[in-house]
Amino acid sequence: MFPQHIIARKRDGHALTREEIAAFVRGATDGSWADYQLSALLMAIFLKGMTPEETAHYTDAMMHSGVVADLSAVPGIKVDKHSTGGVGDKVSIPLAPMVVACGVPVPMISGRGLGHSGGTLDKLESIPGFRTDLSIEAYRAQVARLGCALIGQTKDLAPSDKKLYALRDVTATVECIPLICGSILSKKLAEGIDALVLDVKFGRGAFMKTIAEARQLAAALVAVGRAGGKNVRALLTAMDQPLGRAVGNALEVAESIACLRGAGPADLMEVTYALGAHMLMLGGVAKTEAEARAKLERVVRDGTALAKFREIVAAQGGDARTIDDPARLPQAKFKVPLPAPRAGVVADVDAMGVALAALRLGAGRAKASDRIDPAVGVDGLVKVGERVAAGAPLCVIHASDDAALAEAQRMLAAAIAIGDSAPPASPLIAEVL
Amino acid sequence: MFPQHIIARKRDGHALTREEIAAFVRGATDGSWADYQLSALLMAIFLKGMTPEETAHYTDAMMHSGVVADLSAVPGIKVDKHSTGGVGDKVSIPLAPMVVACGVPVPMISGRGLGHSGGTLDKLESIPGFRTDLSIEAYRAQVARLGCALIGQTKDLAPSDKKLYALRDVTATVECIPLICGSILSKKLAEGIDALVLDVKFGRGAFMKTIAEARQLAAALVAVGRAGGKNVRALLTAMDQPLGRAVGNALEVAESIACLRGAGPADLMEVTYALGAHMLMLGGVAKTEAEARAKLERVVRDGTALAKFREIVAAQGGDARTIDDPARLPQAKFKVPLPAPRAGVVADVDAMGVALAALRLGAGRAKASDRIDPAVGVDGLVKVGERVAAGAPLCVIHASDDAALAEAQRMLAAAIAIGDSAPPASPLIAEVL
Repeated sequence: MFPQHIIARKRDGHALTREEIAAFVRGATDGSWADYQLSALLMAIFLKGMTPEETAHYTDAMMHSGVVADLSAVPGIKVDKHSTGGVGDKVSIPLAPMVVACGVPVPMISGRGLGHSGGTLDKLESIPGFRTDLSIEAYRAQVARLGCALIGQTKDLAPSDKKLYALRDVTATVECIPLICGSILSKKLAEGIDALVLDVKFGRGAFMKTIAEARQLAAALVAVGRAGGKNVRALLTAMDQPLGRAVGNALEVAESIACLRGAGPADLMEVTYALGAHMLMLGGVAKTEAEARAKLERVVRDGTALAKFREIVAAQGGDARTIDDPARLPQAKFKVPLPAPRAGVVADVDAMGVALAALRLGAGRAKASDRIDPAVGVDGLVKVGERVAAGAPLCVIHASDDAALAEAQRMLAAAIAIGDSAPPASPLIAEVL
Repeated sequence: MFPQHIIARKRDGHALTREEIAAFVRGATDGSWADYQLSALLMAIFLKGMTPEETAHYTDAMMHSGVVADLSAVPGIKVDKHSTGGVGDKVSIPLAPMVVACGVPVPMISGRGLGHSGGTLDKLESIPGFRTDLSIEAYRAQVARLGCALIGQTKDLAPSDKKLYALRDVTATVECIPLICGSILSKKLAEGIDALVLDVKFGRGAFMKTIAEARQLAAALVAVGRAGGKNVRALLTAMDQPLGRAVGNALEVAESIACLRGAGPADLMEVTYALGAHMLMLGGVAKTEAEARAKLERVVRDGTALAKFREIVAAQGGDARTIDDPARLPQAKFKVPLPAPRAGVVADVDAMGVALAALRLGAGRAKASDRIDPAVGVDGLVKVGERVAAGAPLCVIHASDDAALAEAQRMLAAAIAIGDSAPPASPLIAEVL
């Protein structure tokens, strides 16, 4: 099987066989295909597509290109969540301890942020001492002991995805549903999970701009995940304004702690409870959404969710005192409110505009080698539909230098629109697949 | 202009601008685009196509990626011929001296053979001492002095084509008309010519299998060549059986010499005269095809064409005595007739089958690093429609070893079919564009 023959078959619109796809993924993993052959096939796949069967074979081959964690010794149905990424999306941090506190193990391997949406790992690492670089062995042991570990992708996990993603990024082959499916699911299935809840976001601050695109991706993810023998559910959630009121690493950890105390912003609570409820149902500890939600609210109210988070932070080397005293988290040099230019109703908070301002402050990475400043970002952000007085704060900017502060002020002022009446509200959770 | 943005525009079906195409070709030439980006764009071009304008820009950028020979000091309209390649196609060798003898300069830069069809350079190099590796300066001087030089592509000539062709070969992006156009014409236009006659072959022994495909390629070549300011004409010629009766390097040179004496096989004479007539018309020395043909027949009859060939061979270091005594050309160890299995009429001589037998004998290259044996091949090949007696020779096999001989015997016997009546004849020259 020469690479060029496999490339020619896809180029001509044929469905590739399991063996052909395995040869391609093996070629990416062991270097037996040249990069230019991989990229030619990626472009052919982009333009000619892959059938659900091909996508399932691709995902399976990618998953088996590295280590697949074996969590069979851990009792219970192991459930994870994956989000396609949004601005202010810190849901994983409060969600995992809540679900674990309800009796469902949550093995969670997360990525770093690149571009406008931050990564869970970067947020967790703003807790002094918190380590995310656990080995697969340490990860398995912690999931067995605490029901949860929050770690980063090791180089043994789906190495073909790392290779192919890097190529896709520079050859205009990122926005392709079968390739996205394979990339997301190969890593998630390699975690050793039994079930998965997906948060597929749509809107200006999301990768998918329209609900139709998000629905298409979600349907593909669900189909391929199920073909891989996993119980998979997907929620389509809106991402036009940031989720919650904080964007920035330590600021989002502080908001996550508030959420675990039941005191998070309403939209963040809603998305966290909704995803958590589906995880409990897939995890077999609740039959209905109402029952699941009651359980989640109970572990928040009685403090067991927060205690579980404290346990996880301590187990991974983090300073658990931050949980009871978030002032111990990294603090920015400047904390400057952004005043409303006039009285009125918040008509728009553009998620992308806020994300770019946070990026300018140093909260994210424009390229992989950039260093993140854990302290900077915005919090106290107004939400669409809220009434503001002239001069009242639209948010508080946390900055480490004057120049970034000045630029962020300008960017945020442009991202937040004040009008005379509230725009029509649209549901945060649009659909469940 | 990031490569990935240009790739994305073609991926999405847009026509690229002159600047975008120039950036791509420059990227291939100077290495500023990675091979995987070049191949991703080549695949996008394969699947989304290029407009005639894009193809013209591409050809122009490729031509200017290296040296463009300046033959403006040579008087007269310089005309070359290019063939898309066929089995036994040695036309360039008798054609160039004939046309030059009629007063039209022929600057000709040729390629080597790869795969089933041989290269003009390989054939010429079977003449002892013949050098094809002249510098552009020596090429220009010889064209000025003799009206003709028959040389190989130097590394300075359209270097982007060398790079891109090598990538296309291993990424399943060869069979794409705009890319083929750019590859052929960039090299030909860099020769310094004013006009070009194209021999676009179709049939089992050609790159294009059907006349419809050949017509499409020919139309694109003519349009792009004219967009480049050159007078271009294309002939569509059949390539189902080999052209002439000889396949193999020295054997084809011997047949070319016979052709220059007016004693070549009828089909070879016909194609050579037809292409030559159009070259004379484009070269401004004949108004009609009949007038041109009469001139060509005259220089053959009076020996001036053969004298011109002798002059060129001598100028390029070749042993000119071979022209009057072809027995001085390399001779194979074995010369074995292949007997007809029965009496009848030749129903088929499969060009591809003959080519593969010649390749097996050592007359061609399966890969670029293979060495060619100049002496081997077949000659005295029967033509479709000819009557044969049982045991009469269908061809003579020229071989250098027993094993290759035995295999070639088997392959040739399978390639030549004897029937009871002649199949309907189809024209050799099907169309002129």
